[in-house]
Amino acid sequence: MRTERAKVKIIPLGGLSEIGKNLTAIEFKDDIVVIDCGLRFPDEDMFGIDVVIPDVSYLIKNQEKIRGIFLTHGHEDHIGALPYVLKQLNVPVYGTKLTLGIVETKLREHGLLGSTELIRVKPRDIIKLNVVSVEFIKTSHSIADSVAIAIHTPLGVILHTGDFKIDYTPIDGELTDFARFAELGKKGVLVMLADSTNVERTGYTMSERTVGESFLRIFNKAPGRIIVATFASNVHRIQQIIDAAEKYGRKVAVSGRSMENIVQVAMELGYLEMEEGTLISIDQISKYPNDQVVLITTGSQGEPMSALARMAASEHKKINVIEGDTVIISASPIPGNEKFVSRVINQLFKKGAEVIYESLAEVHVSGHACQEELKLMQTLVKPRFFIPVHGEYRHLKQHAELACKLGLPDRNFVIAENGDVIEVTRNYIKKSGTVTSGQVFVDGLGVGDVGHIVLRDRKHLSQDGILTVVVTIERDTGTVIAGPDIISRGFVYVRESEGLMEEAREIVKNVLRECEQKKITDWATLKANMRDELREFLYEKTKRKPMILPIIMEI
Amino acid sequence: MRTERAKVKIIPLGGLSEIGKNLTAIEFKDDIVVIDCGLRFPDEDMFGIDVVIPDVSYLIKNQEKIRGIFLTHGHEDHIGALPYVLKQLNVPVYGTKLTLGIVETKLREHGLLGSTELIRVKPRDIIKLNVVSVEFIKTSHSIADSVAIAIHTPLGVILHTGDFKIDYTPIDGELTDFARFAELGKKGVLVMLADSTNVERTGYTMSERTVGESFLRIFNKAPGRIIVATFASNVHRIQQIIDAAEKYGRKVAVSGRSMENIVQVAMELGYLEMEEGTLISIDQISKYPNDQVVLITTGSQGEPMSALARMAASEHKKINVIEGDTVIISASPIPGNEKFVSRVINQLFKKGAEVIYESLAEVHVSGHACQEELKLMQTLVKPRFFIPVHGEYRHLKQHAELACKLGLPDRNFVIAENGDVIEVTRNYIKKSGTVTSGQVFVDGLGVGDVGHIVLRDRKHLSQDGILTVVVTIERDTGTVIAGPDIISRGFVYVRESEGLMEEAREIVKNVLRECEQKKITDWATLKANMRDELREFLYEKTKRKPMILPIIMEI
Repeated sequence: MRTERAKVKIIPLGGLSEIGKNLTAIEFKDDIVVIDCGLRFPDEDMFGIDVVIPDVSYLIKNQEKIRGIFLTHGHEDHIGALPYVLKQLNVPVYGTKLTLGIVETKLREHGLLGSTELIRVKPRDIIKLNVVSVEFIKTSHSIADSVAIAIHTPLGVILHTGDFKIDYTPIDGELTDFARFAELGKKGVLVMLADSTNVERTGYTMSERTVGESFLRIFNKAPGRIIVATFASNVHRIQQIIDAAEKYGRKVAVSGRSMENIVQVAMELGYLEMEEGTLISIDQISKYPNDQVVLITTGSQGEPMSALARMAASEHKKINVIEGDTVIISASPIPGNEKFVSRVINQLFKKGAEVIYESLAEVHVSGHACQEELKLMQTLVKPRFFIPVHGEYRHLKQHAELACKLGLPDRNFVIAENGDVIEVTRNYIKKSGTVTSGQVFVDGLGVGDVGHIVLRDRKHLSQDGILTVVVTIERDTGTVIAGPDIISRGFVYVRESEGLMEEAREIVKNVLRECEQKKITDWATLKANMRDELREFLYEKTKRKPMILPIIMEI
Repeated sequence: MRTERAKVKIIPLGGLSEIGKNLTAIEFKDDIVVIDCGLRFPDEDMFGIDVVIPDVSYLIKNQEKIRGIFLTHGHEDHIGALPYVLKQLNVPVYGTKLTLGIVETKLREHGLLGSTELIRVKPRDIIKLNVVSVEFIKTSHSIADSVAIAIHTPLGVILHTGDFKIDYTPIDGELTDFARFAELGKKGVLVMLADSTNVERTGYTMSERTVGESFLRIFNKAPGRIIVATFASNVHRIQQIIDAAEKYGRKVAVSGRSMENIVQVAMELGYLEMEEGTLISIDQISKYPNDQVVLITTGSQGEPMSALARMAASEHKKINVIEGDTVIISASPIPGNEKFVSRVINQLFKKGAEVIYESLAEVHVSGHACQEELKLMQTLVKPRFFIPVHGEYRHLKQHAELACKLGLPDRNFVIAENGDVIEVTRNYIKKSGTVTSGQVFVDGLGVGDVGHIVLRDRKHLSQDGILTVVVTIERDTGTVIAGPDIISRGFVYVRESEGLMEEAREIVKNVLRECEQKKITDWATLKANMRDELREFLYEKTKRKPMILPIIMEI
């Protein structure tokens, strides 16, 4: 076999020029390896959308080549699109123990558990596929059991770091596999794809262990109940809360659906250790003195329906926050969530609780590598070619610059967009074309049925509401039989705007009269006239532009 | 006159438990002094709202007592509600030169300039009113000409710091009037109200001058055009851009309506100094070599319609960003704007520009005092009573705690809400009641006509759109003459959902048939039935809940 002319194609279908919905296809001859299958949460202007997933048309078209989906870790932006994608594409899913534990819960909810082949792997495992083989390498991240993925091809190794940080004192003692990264680096890595999230931050990300030290200080002083909100998936964080609780003789309860799910999975799989009797149910909390309980909860992003937000708003069925409670928000607000988090903090303070959050104490650390860590990875792996991933354009660009400062030649990186086909040989890396890519909106049960027209309408409706004009007309004569009636929603408070609505009705009547005189029975023209006249009138009177929906009933 | 039993009433009508729409009434006997009259930008869930202003019913009811509105500085959150409030309340407005310059532009746009008495003051001026007198004291802030306000009452001095920071090297050389604060402190200040914005930040806010130093470094190296986006009102920042431009032989143009307005006002009033010929129009830029021009622009918050955002999106008529341009974003994203700013940064990078922003270089400093500065003010003024203002609850609480750590007795502060009446005598401070307060929504020309019902509808519409059902019925017989027709907007993409809509029509037909059989001619019942049946059907099919608007036309 002549491999000299062979090429590796790297096709990111998500995760570039965005944070979220990570999905990358690596194609060599007849093998396609898919790394991760994540979702993204909607932007504010994606009204009514629940989640956004990658467009995987390319994968569906090349179904027979796909050897599996290989997961780096169990965060939503790496596994969240699985239930949607697996419905269209039944391929095996590979992941480490905790990752698959979380995936199982998800697939069970979607009724896909029985039909999906889940293959559990551990670091240093190598899966032989048709031509290529896939290796898993231990990393550290804000979830346990994260791995980088190395794809061994005849042309060389394609290394995808996944999300990572360097933690010299990880909670589970499982260090990043520096030796393996160095070994691959020594043998020669053809292409590295690496996490760019924190490239704008200088220095190092703190160890997860520093958060535990803060917990001990806070637990030591807290006079009453302690409520800690954090990401459900951060099993090491939860372990540290449990450790601090046990040290100070407190019982631990959990609240929030995702927290309950993950704690259960993590305990079953041995990722959480605690003494017999430490865990109690949320209903038992009141049976213990306040200074002997800890509640671990969801809602660290202030999400309005989350357990913590409901506690803060006095809407939680079981927990009423009181003076003496200490609430720790062990997370950073994700951009866009600042106001939600702030609202929760204010409400908790008003209830008399002590609230401790990132700007006041070290109760959170990032899961992503800062500049010095990125330099370490770059230096260990010394890839010939480099593709920065997992970031907005600004991050990708700065990550490429960082690599160049460490000696990567100027032509040896590519800043790509989702859908780009990046062609790599031993001698070059270049963009050679594009495939279908994009975002698919999930709204309720609908996957992809809400497109830009619907979103544009929702946006329009959200700004100035709607004005519906209905009139019943006799088809043959063009005589108005009933109406025009005008009904508005989200435009003005109708009771206070009767005059305005009456004037609007007169405008429509005039249009109808004119059309009747001119014997216009082309309803499209009639509707357009009504819409134009009304729009102009309403804008002059209110400087607003509601959607105008003329409806003509023919009899 | 016995003043012993007299009380000062301090009534915040805006600015507490929120950042924005600052307005505080200070009432002593027959005098009401109003400090500031600001607006707030809407939260994301205030769909279609342009700005939010305070409810000033209390002021209107007590109109004859109001001696004037006294402005601390010219930021929107301190002056922005003036055009709306002055329409209801024609009282004199006091302010320093630049503040009134900005106010004048605003009032001219609203046709209120002729009818408003504007009284220009300078620091150390004391305005004698009926019983109380009002003094202005120089401070530093991110706009020139900012002042604190001291109200001298027979009971003692009420001191409102306004927004402030401590800058030992201000650009205009006009230092905070430390001597006067200390003097008042020595004589005894009864109550201080102080800015809480940055209470969560340790240390000091950097001097405005540090930004100028960054500009010099950047200007020294920039190979092509320089575009600087900043807040239009930050005249000192603009001065520093001009200084750097002149030092490196560059011409300066300005872009964006508010930037053009403020630069003009500031130049007329002598707040901007530049050499003859430095300022050029935006149209002249292309006549100079790229390395000889600087463009100062609005859009530092990434606002979608701003000049910078249009440049980034290639939608600006006059400026096309190219490789070699250096864009400086000299501002912090205000919470909620992060994604807008990020989008603009990404777009500019993609166009090949060098983009410099806060996380990469010191191109912005805050205008608000951090902890050490707050301590200095607290220590200089040593007020008997303290009311933290200008902040969310979390900030107010922490500011009160900071004051207590410096020796303020526990009972000598009040954390208030908008509308609280805070009663102060020589011996105590307490909340003694409340007055009407709240937020008034401005939407287009409507002030206050959009209330919670309209907003609730807009929110509902934004999530799942609307489904209008129209049917024409003969009044007497209840016979359906035309329809039912179903038209949706923002719900599903209709072409792909014909089946669903047809089913929905069948549901409505069934309801109509039943009602016809039961001879129901109570249209309210009929509508309710249609709505209920449709809602259930659509939710089951789509897990969405569009607004359902049944319309019955009678003939």
